Amino acid sequence: MEKKIFEVSVIGASGYAGAELVRILLSHPNVHLAALSSVSYTGQSIADLYPSYREICEKTLVSEEEAVEKGDVVFASLPHGLSQEIALRCSEKGKLFIDLGADFRLENGETYTQWYGKDYIYPELHEKSVYGLSEIYREDIKKAKIIGNPGCYPTSVALALYPAIKNGLVKADDFIVDSKSGVTGAGKSLTQKTHFPECNEAFSPYSIGKHRHTPEIEQTLSHFAHSPVRITFVPHLLPVNRGIISTVYAEKNSGFGIEEIHGIYRKTYENERFVRVLPLGDVANLKNVKMSNFCDISLHEDIHTSKLIIVSAIDNMVKGAAGQAVQNMNIALGLDETAGINFVPPAI
Amino acid sequence: MEKKIFEVSVIGASGYAGAELVRILLSHPNVHLAALSSVSYTGQSIADLYPSYREICEKTLVSEEEAVEKGDVVFASLPHGLSQEIALRCSEKGKLFIDLGADFRLENGETYTQWYGKDYIYPELHEKSVYGLSEIYREDIKKAKIIGNPGCYPTSVALALYPAIKNGLVKADDFIVDSKSGVTGAGKSLTQKTHFPECNEAFSPYSIGKHRHTPEIEQTLSHFAHSPVRITFVPHLLPVNRGIISTVYAEKNSGFGIEEIHGIYRKTYENERFVRVLPLGDVANLKNVKMSNFCDISLHEDIHTSKLIIVSAIDNMVKGAAGQAVQNMNIALGLDETAGINFVPPAI
Amino acid sequence: MEKKIFEVSVIGASGYAGAELVRILLSHPNVHLAALSSVSYTGQSIADLYPSYREICEKTLVSEEEAVEKGDVVFASLPHGLSQEIALRCSEKGKLFIDLGADFRLENGETYTQWYGKDYIYPELHEKSVYGLSEIYREDIKKAKIIGNPGCYPTSVALALYPAIKNGLVKADDFIVDSKSGVTGAGKSLTQKTHFPECNEAFSPYSIGKHRHTPEIEQTLSHFAHSPVRITFVPHLLPVNRGIISTVYAEKNSGFGIEEIHGIYRKTYENERFVRVLPLGDVANLKNVKMSNFCDISLHEDIHTSKLIIVSAIDNMVKGAAGQAVQNMNIALGLDETAGINFVPPAI
Amino acid sequence: MEKKIFEVSVIGASGYAGAELVRILLSHPNVHLAALSSVSYTGQSIADLYPSYREICEKTLVSEEEAVEKGDVVFASLPHGLSQEIALRCSEKGKLFIDLGADFRLENGETYTQWYGKDYIYPELHEKSVYGLSEIYREDIKKAKIIGNPGCYPTSVALALYPAIKNGLVKADDFIVDSKSGVTGAGKSLTQKTHFPECNEAFSPYSIGKHRHTPEIEQTLSHFAHSPVRITFVPHLLPVNRGIISTVYAEKNSGFGIEEIHGIYRKTYENERFVRVLPLGDVANLKNVKMSNFCDISLHEDIHTSKLIIVSAIDNMVKGAAGQAVQNMNIALGLDETAGINFVPPAI
Repeated sequence: MEKKIFEVSVIGASGYAGAELVRILLSHPNVHLAALSSVSYTGQSIADLYPSYREICEKTLVSEEEAVEKGDVVFASLPHGLSQEIALRCSEKGKLFIDLGADFRLENGETYTQWYGKDYIYPELHEKSVYGLSEIYREDIKKAKIIGNPGCYPTSVALALYPAIKNGLVKADDFIVDSKSGVTGAGKSLTQKTHFPECNEAFSPYSIGKHRHTPEIEQTLSHFAHSPVRITFVPHLLPVNRGIISTVYAEKNSGFGIEEIHGIYRKTYENERFVRVLPLGDVANLKNVKMSNFCDISLHEDIHTSKLIIVSAIDNMVKGAAGQAVQNMNIALGLDETAGINFVPPAI
Repeated sequence: MEKKIFEVSVIGASGYAGAELVRILLSHPNVHLAALSSVSYTGQSIADLYPSYREICEKTLVSEEEAVEKGDVVFASLPHGLSQEIALRCSEKGKLFIDLGADFRLENGETYTQWYGKDYIYPELHEKSVYGLSEIYREDIKKAKIIGNPGCYPTSVALALYPAIKNGLVKADDFIVDSKSGVTGAGKSLTQKTHFPECNEAFSPYSIGKHRHTPEIEQTLSHFAHSPVRITFVPHLLPVNRGIISTVYAEKNSGFGIEEIHGIYRKTYENERFVRVLPLGDVANLKNVKMSNFCDISLHEDIHTSKLIIVSAIDNMVKGAAGQAVQNMNIALGLDETAGINFVPPAI
Repeated sequence: MEKKIFEVSVIGASGYAGAELVRILLSHPNVHLAALSSVSYTGQSIADLYPSYREICEKTLVSEEEAVEKGDVVFASLPHGLSQEIALRCSEKGKLFIDLGADFRLENGETYTQWYGKDYIYPELHEKSVYGLSEIYREDIKKAKIIGNPGCYPTSVALALYPAIKNGLVKADDFIVDSKSGVTGAGKSLTQKTHFPECNEAFSPYSIGKHRHTPEIEQTLSHFAHSPVRITFVPHLLPVNRGIISTVYAEKNSGFGIEEIHGIYRKTYENERFVRVLPLGDVANLKNVKMSNFCDISLHEDIHTSKLIIVSAIDNMVKGAAGQAVQNMNIALGLDETAGINFVPPAI
Repeated sequence: MEKKIFEVSVIGASGYAGAELVRILLSHPNVHLAALSSVSYTGQSIADLYPSYREICEKTLVSEEEAVEKGDVVFASLPHGLSQEIALRCSEKGKLFIDLGADFRLENGETYTQWYGKDYIYPELHEKSVYGLSEIYREDIKKAKIIGNPGCYPTSVALALYPAIKNGLVKADDFIVDSKSGVTGAGKSLTQKTHFPECNEAFSPYSIGKHRHTPEIEQTLSHFAHSPVRITFVPHLLPVNRGIISTVYAEKNSGFGIEEIHGIYRKTYENERFVRVLPLGDVANLKNVKMSNFCDISLHEDIHTSKLIIVSAIDNMVKGAAGQAVQNMNIALGLDETAGINFVPPAI
């Protein structure tokens, strides 16, 4: 059988998520890198920006237009508001478009406007687009031409809660989500807060009660519950490079023991290569998923308060961004879902 | 006026909390270090264990007996179960005894037995002992001869919730406490989990729903509330040396706005040198309290879920252990409460 | 053409280098993992030791004997002194044996005894063995059945100096080598020095003038020079997980400009996939080789002292251990030299 | 006896060295903070910039003019070229001026111009100024009104080599200096290189053979030697907040054993509170001097190459900047030299 090779472009390759996408695509068996684009660094080599790519990929960063033109598949990793025009062009030319930004995650244009301060320009595109939470919306993704890749926090929270909500194990109205993310999540832009001496040996929450991932998480959980779900979401900046831990607090419905809950989680994800429900007693650690596309989930019970505590761990750059984007591409193109992302996370 | 100088001993000086106590006491204007003891390192110099003390304090580690004998004030920083005999001897000789371990924190002997697997041998000592949460129990501490110094997590949580519970700002029955502690909190003993390559660039919760500080926190909060309080407590190991952040989630009672709550917090702590209620909009960061005896508290509201989120930051080794112990000594001896612990936390 | 698959065993799979070898071999296209062994953890699953491997490789750790028997290729990653018997057995059965330990690195048995305190038991095995510095001794490795994989520091230093010595660019008698290694280099064993709170935010040299890699480096450089070379070697413990930077100071021979030297380095390594001679002006950084088999080399001149400064960067766990071991296996088995180790180092 | 209190101003208080100076001065028994100035942040509170100072020092940042006017002692911590005018004004008004920048370190105006690209405007001021390496130039500092505080690297190197050069223990013409500095040394300005995700888990040298501290170090060593000394100086960026390790390689003069050398070092510094010559066998570690004004020095011999290796450790922000500046102030004002800087470095 002949191996299919697709021409793939990355728009916004100079950012962290874009650069990680390049890394993954370079080793993908069914991909040829067609073009990389960047507004700020057009004309420079990606290897000048990221010397780790020297002698591996020294492609010159080109314009967005060129990237769209050359790719059968087009990924974009851009600040919000900039992906809609690209989606339109891709749509017109029948290309597969996968957006790592925020423009195709929210179903409701008003919610988007409220949280991001911009508008949905082409509502019909948003209606055609699919939310790319691979494990849950696989069937829709298979048929999609525009995929909104989930945010990093939303991925970690949705996978953590899906079996619990779906199976009525918890009261599905109000969750506490205490998340901690490595600093790559804040991106390549320089800020005082991510300046090494102020970030190292430091720790604190940020955007308490107003992080933009809040409506995205609530939208997904509400779908699971078939009723409105609210969350209290507090993200923290963790002084490590990669990884997210979400510690989720839920009110258990009576009648479910932790072994039964564990069994249901195992059953739910038994055919999912990238979700690992840990043995009872183990605790998810971002260390064990680093540099991989895995989402590790551990389950815990606080008996005296009858809370169910779900801990999920992902690599924010892989399962939380570039890895899941490639997983979605694999699904949409009918490739082996694990192609190019079957990384073994390092032991140390 | 003549300056009073007290002879002070530290039992368990070879552990991290003990060593930090030595550092603080060395610069205390009213203290002369009488003796340092250690079971494991008797006969060695403290500077051999901790070369940062070379040419500053090279005292030989002696026996517990000698330490008790030589001190007017005796601190102990020992594994649980070992402080009661020392307390007895100090009590018989009229010395001030301050325990940094867990033996004099819980009022109820049965709770102690349940969580620590040992018994209260001298119930009368426990009745005389005072729980050394300096800001709250100052009047009792003034008269105390046996002080149980609070645990690090309990200090951060109790100060965070005291004004809210005391003033009925929140529903005081059930709190979610998501805490993150630097690795010194795990002590000097070598473990796989605190081995650098397995701890660095890692993050995860531990002891979920069963950490020994849980009953201590519940005891204190129940006192504040005059009714039983339960918490769901999840500590996390943070890859930094020092500091604790506790993110506390509470159900706001209706009718209290965040400005009013902030005002009440400010009022409550207005005369407390070591508690800083941050301006609304600021977020507590462990970076800003490192190497100091401060507890920083920031207040946040999640409007759409009407949760009050309280973030508190302490240095686990100072306000969470040695610093508060010295603060308690100062109170009990009638010294200036800030003597020797008025550290300015470094800007970077 | 049919793909060749080899049965491969790892002895000492529970250590860090062994575990990293497992990670690499799991994705190697020509390898089937035959057996993993460990003395300390026999009977346990490798995934219990390293939960990052859960659901990927849960092989039970078996005895050394079983590992030897089942493998066509046998890797050992053991404390010194334990590999010779294994080499003998492999040799008798015609298996390829690759030793990641120190037993087959030194040519001279007396030097081995002097530095390691043990003896060469089977001198004939040592005569047949080949020093596995892949780029330099490729032709010998092709024919070898026993390969002594170089130490991490020696790899970084030998590749840094090979072109300079070979081409007479520097005075080849006396070099200063100031190396810095991440903490995985110290292995899995717990020590006070690698306890997180004592290692984090710390930095210092160790084993000054007496590190066991000294004779190994001198042996290799002397071969390059065809005359005795001495080095002053000072390793430092760097508070990062992975990576080695060696800063090498050499006395330039007159008549060579830095451009010419750079040209010679480029020429020397032009066909080497895993050695990257950086453009003049760039500086090697361990960040850019992390998780890869690359050795990055940058060249610098101090004009006013006419010193040539060569900086080399490797990932101590990959090119400095498991990666180079697999590279050697590939060479010895006649496979594509880059098979299974063609990792793209992450940009961030 | 009445305690003397001096009015002290800090110009450039918003930078890292300035902020550290503020921290130290706040606890100094003989200092009242007269004014803090900043060009970029005039009108803001220092506590807005550095929230660790909240409720301790919330002084508003004023103009340079006001700072000069209000202080009896004026410190400046500014980019090079900006201190000369301030020195002039202080000089005219008889104030003590201590410059933490580079404008008063080099004796030779041409060297300054060559390395810093600016000129010495008032040569007579430079002639009156004293190089503030406290331990070595104490007698000159006592009489000085303008003090050029040494750079961080130069402090660590000069103290490391002074006894060796002074006593002819080493060939004093050519030294290799391999230094590693924590990231606060790079200052508060945002750069890609000091952005957390690119700095953390990274390591590399920089400014090889062209760092501006080179001529300063050579000037000082040449004074010690009474003849020209050259160094090959390679600084490295170390992913920790604070601290410098300099590993210095010297050619031992024959006839000196390491014990004798150690004895001479001990003797040289026996009355120096802030220089600790470690016992033979110990190794200087930046961990042990962090947050203190100590310089730790350890001595090592590589017998087979007859090299003397000297390792020195300082906190770049304290002994390498603000601490030594205060030490110089104490000397110049006739105060106890250790006043306000007698910090005990933390054990952990």
